[in-house]
Amino acid sequence: MSVLTVEIRSGAYYDSVILMQLQRSLMDFPGVLDAGVVMGTKANKDVLEQSNLLAPETEAAEPDDLIIVVRGKDNTSADEAIGKVDELLSARRSAGIDQEYYPKSLETAIKMLPEAQWVLISVPGRYASNLAQYSLDSGKHVFLYSDNVTIENEISLKKLAAEKCLLVMGPDCGTAIINGVGLGFANKVRHGPIGIVAASGTGLQQVSSRIHQFGSGITHALGTGGRDLSEQVNAITARQGLDLLSRDPETKVICLISKPPSPQVANELIDLARKLGKPVVVNFIGFSTSSRKVDNVYFTASFDETAQLALDLAASGLDESGLSIHNLDRFTASQKYLRGLFSGGTLAYEALLILQDYIPNVYSNTPINKEFQLLDSMVSKEHTIIDLGEDEFTVGRLHPMMDNDLRIRRLLKEASDPEVAVILLDVVLGYGAHPNPASELAPAIAEAKSSARDKSRYVEIVAIVSGTDEDPQGIQDQIKVLEDAGAIVELSSETAVRQVGRLINSLILEPISSGSDYIQKIDIDILRQPLTAINIGLESFMESLLAQEAEAIHVDWRPPAGGDERLMSILAKMRKES
Amino acid sequence: MSVLTVEIRSGAYYDSVILMQLQRSLMDFPGVLDAGVVMGTKANKDVLEQSNLLAPETEAAEPDDLIIVVRGKDNTSADEAIGKVDELLSARRSAGIDQEYYPKSLETAIKMLPEAQWVLISVPGRYASNLAQYSLDSGKHVFLYSDNVTIENEISLKKLAAEKCLLVMGPDCGTAIINGVGLGFANKVRHGPIGIVAASGTGLQQVSSRIHQFGSGITHALGTGGRDLSEQVNAITARQGLDLLSRDPETKVICLISKPPSPQVANELIDLARKLGKPVVVNFIGFSTSSRKVDNVYFTASFDETAQLALDLAASGLDESGLSIHNLDRFTASQKYLRGLFSGGTLAYEALLILQDYIPNVYSNTPINKEFQLLDSMVSKEHTIIDLGEDEFTVGRLHPMMDNDLRIRRLLKEASDPEVAVILLDVVLGYGAHPNPASELAPAIAEAKSSARDKSRYVEIVAIVSGTDEDPQGIQDQIKVLEDAGAIVELSSETAVRQVGRLINSLILEPISSGSDYIQKIDIDILRQPLTAINIGLESFMESLLAQEAEAIHVDWRPPAGGDERLMSILAKMRKES
Repeated sequence: MSVLTVEIRSGAYYDSVILMQLQRSLMDFPGVLDAGVVMGTKANKDVLEQSNLLAPETEAAEPDDLIIVVRGKDNTSADEAIGKVDELLSARRSAGIDQEYYPKSLETAIKMLPEAQWVLISVPGRYASNLAQYSLDSGKHVFLYSDNVTIENEISLKKLAAEKCLLVMGPDCGTAIINGVGLGFANKVRHGPIGIVAASGTGLQQVSSRIHQFGSGITHALGTGGRDLSEQVNAITARQGLDLLSRDPETKVICLISKPPSPQVANELIDLARKLGKPVVVNFIGFSTSSRKVDNVYFTASFDETAQLALDLAASGLDESGLSIHNLDRFTASQKYLRGLFSGGTLAYEALLILQDYIPNVYSNTPINKEFQLLDSMVSKEHTIIDLGEDEFTVGRLHPMMDNDLRIRRLLKEASDPEVAVILLDVVLGYGAHPNPASELAPAIAEAKSSARDKSRYVEIVAIVSGTDEDPQGIQDQIKVLEDAGAIVELSSETAVRQVGRLINSLILEPISSGSDYIQKIDIDILRQPLTAINIGLESFMESLLAQEAEAIHVDWRPPAGGDERLMSILAKMRKES
Repeated sequence: MSVLTVEIRSGAYYDSVILMQLQRSLMDFPGVLDAGVVMGTKANKDVLEQSNLLAPETEAAEPDDLIIVVRGKDNTSADEAIGKVDELLSARRSAGIDQEYYPKSLETAIKMLPEAQWVLISVPGRYASNLAQYSLDSGKHVFLYSDNVTIENEISLKKLAAEKCLLVMGPDCGTAIINGVGLGFANKVRHGPIGIVAASGTGLQQVSSRIHQFGSGITHALGTGGRDLSEQVNAITARQGLDLLSRDPETKVICLISKPPSPQVANELIDLARKLGKPVVVNFIGFSTSSRKVDNVYFTASFDETAQLALDLAASGLDESGLSIHNLDRFTASQKYLRGLFSGGTLAYEALLILQDYIPNVYSNTPINKEFQLLDSMVSKEHTIIDLGEDEFTVGRLHPMMDNDLRIRRLLKEASDPEVAVILLDVVLGYGAHPNPASELAPAIAEAKSSARDKSRYVEIVAIVSGTDEDPQGIQDQIKVLEDAGAIVELSSETAVRQVGRLINSLILEPISSGSDYIQKIDIDILRQPLTAINIGLESFMESLLAQEAEAIHVDWRPPAGGDERLMSILAKMRKES
């Protein structure tokens, strides 16, 4: 047999650390079998029920009520424990903080430590927004650990912050590391070349820990809060963070981590990442991508892969071999289109796929999206990729890998089009293929280039050569003949197509738009200066700051009117009227 | 000025090599400016029009008609060239084949070379099916280069082949390499540890070439034809090929390459690949996957990545650290469910995501698919992953990274469920987190395991520890305490979840179904014996076989009734009636 004793305390605020400590202290009493100390929310009452601590009195408790339940082996034990509650609540908790004077308000704390750049807020959500706004108004960056903050408040706080060139990490931001100091939950991670922006707390922790375990380290890790990449919030903090890390010379590689964002936000962030001039490893966990890499942006699928790839990129740097992008004035203003003439169907398909990262609309006789089906395969339209090995071209005719006639005619025709800037070909070697394709294609390439030159145009011709050094055609000879005719030769089909994509992007003068250009730049000093902070909320976060030797001050915060909602609204009304 | 002379020849079959050579010979005549020799299809007439070779007479030509057009600088030149057509057509073409006697039929060829395992067919599509069927009926594997074969014919040929334990590579199969000999279009690639199955001709060529360029080589490369992975054909040849390569001891890694198949076929092939016991690199070009690896199956996005990863895997082998999968008899028959109790939201999310590769239905308070939303977060259902850091659990309560109470209660409850086999936890270290989580979790883990033992059950407890060796908790101590209590500890969240997924898969005794079990095994000797083949169609393929020193015989094939469709149908009718 055992008995349950219950006490309900109405409408008072208690720090959750205190509640945890109270519950533990109660359980330590002799004769106490179990205890529960929770606010009277539905979920918490469910928890009590699961632990067999639910009594009829607790049913009526409101979310703002504190429920104290003790299961004792008899009435005496239970009552004795409950009788000590006031004493336990008033006892000072762990004195991990050596601070002479505890300011009672954020206002006072800011006056005491005016050089603090950061305010860490971990009070209950309903009190957090006002404190965050006050911090921003005082010119402080905000680390907002609190959850249960509305998305409307998040948006207005972040808009205010963006105007003031300040960061709001959060709400519900669990972790960050600024200049070596962890905020909230954070691992001690070696200093190194990798920067992180994360809308995911444990994602940031796990990736930064793995980076450390693999032997590297991080510059800074910026949290954004889990909703930052939603369509409503529109990644305000993530954009600020990416911009900051792009300007930090110590950050060589940037990781961007989030649960899958809205497709629009994802695309905008990827476009922004492509402009940062550093490798960016994107892990939108569970976000499907069909390519692994677009220019400097790499997509990963797991935390381990993210950490490992960031290390590899930090070691190797960006490998972006360029293709005549620096010599755009050779083309006339009208030249802007790509024409791809493929003999290999899958090479054509891969090209169409990769080009999606660069040019939205590419017509084809075998398009990925039927919207871009050419009405007439014989006539190119704007950007076009033709698979000359399709059935329509091969009735009573040899495959284009064996017979170059059709391709040569088409090549010359495309080159004579004043809007064509680049022609992309594949040259497939090996048994069964034409014994010497370069001998036929090279003269046509030379002719195409020279006739363009006669009209003061420049046509770039890029050839993907597929084959081995043991193929009967002699791959080195084939490459040399094609290059001598003026073609750029690539062995990697992906490299060739990406180079062409970048060249066309440069020509059509439609630089990737990021949608983030409205973001004003935050002073990079925030990543340079030793971190100084004001902590308001959980004492354990203050203890962590001190353990990391950061300068900080803790606010002995209590909710207005002791957390009494009715009284609070009266006070607010009085303030408004005064 | 120039003139156009046209000749139309009705309803006769011409080898496309001959047509190409005729066109070139005509263009070599003095006074000839251009020439076209094509069958009268719509596409070919478009080609003529593009080359300014279309005349009123050609408009009326039928697809079976041969159009010969010459543009001469005057009438004399054009007429003279056209006058030579008969002479040119009857001239013997390049004598690259040293064969004493050319059999006129497949029947005769098979009698001449009965040990031939392969028949290579590259005649026009409408004649190809019959030849393929005859080959299968004669017990020969078929390499079917011909395109323009109907999908109905493809299906019936492949079903027939599967019954007879034979392969049909194609139709429209451009390439294969069997035992070092390339069929159709194929590169000369070093012998090595990588096998390929590909529904993509140039994909196979490019990947095998890149493998060679990167310094490795291949065992065999099997083409399937581009439609093999469609829902209708249901990947009959790909399944046979994967099975063959899985049984070939020299093949250490298998690559599977295709344009994106139907989702159902893709899933079945992936499931099949998971049972092959070798690393399989899957490149379904442009097919989005959210994970990069499921057990032994790796997903790649480009030809280069496919080649490189195959090399890496061939060098390193499979890294499949197991988790008590070999000791399943410790669990009772009723134990089959997983319960995951997470403090980190994104770790929970990643776990849900990875588990999709193993267990279709995992309930959660934060499910990826709303269908699996738990009605009550306090009560697990079947397989369940709980994020204890969700707002519902943290009102007036410390985050579960700081307060272990809720998790310990839940852990003991889950362990007492007779249907639970595995409990998965995360233990997040670092600043801000509980100063010694193992000290509280380990006793609960030990209690959970021992109370299960008391009931003759075994509960596996897997802990993901996230943190670094510089974290204040001391990661090595934390791991040791957890392990001493009986937990299996992993630093990689992905490894932990995949191990748990495999364990549950083994327990629920629902081995992955491949849908391919009906595929009978093909005699592996086909990959061992020196390739011997009969070639029917393009002479250049025969020349390639001889250049590779394969034993082969070429059939001097002509279509029945000289390709005259009307006469053919009369002959067919007569045969049927006789």
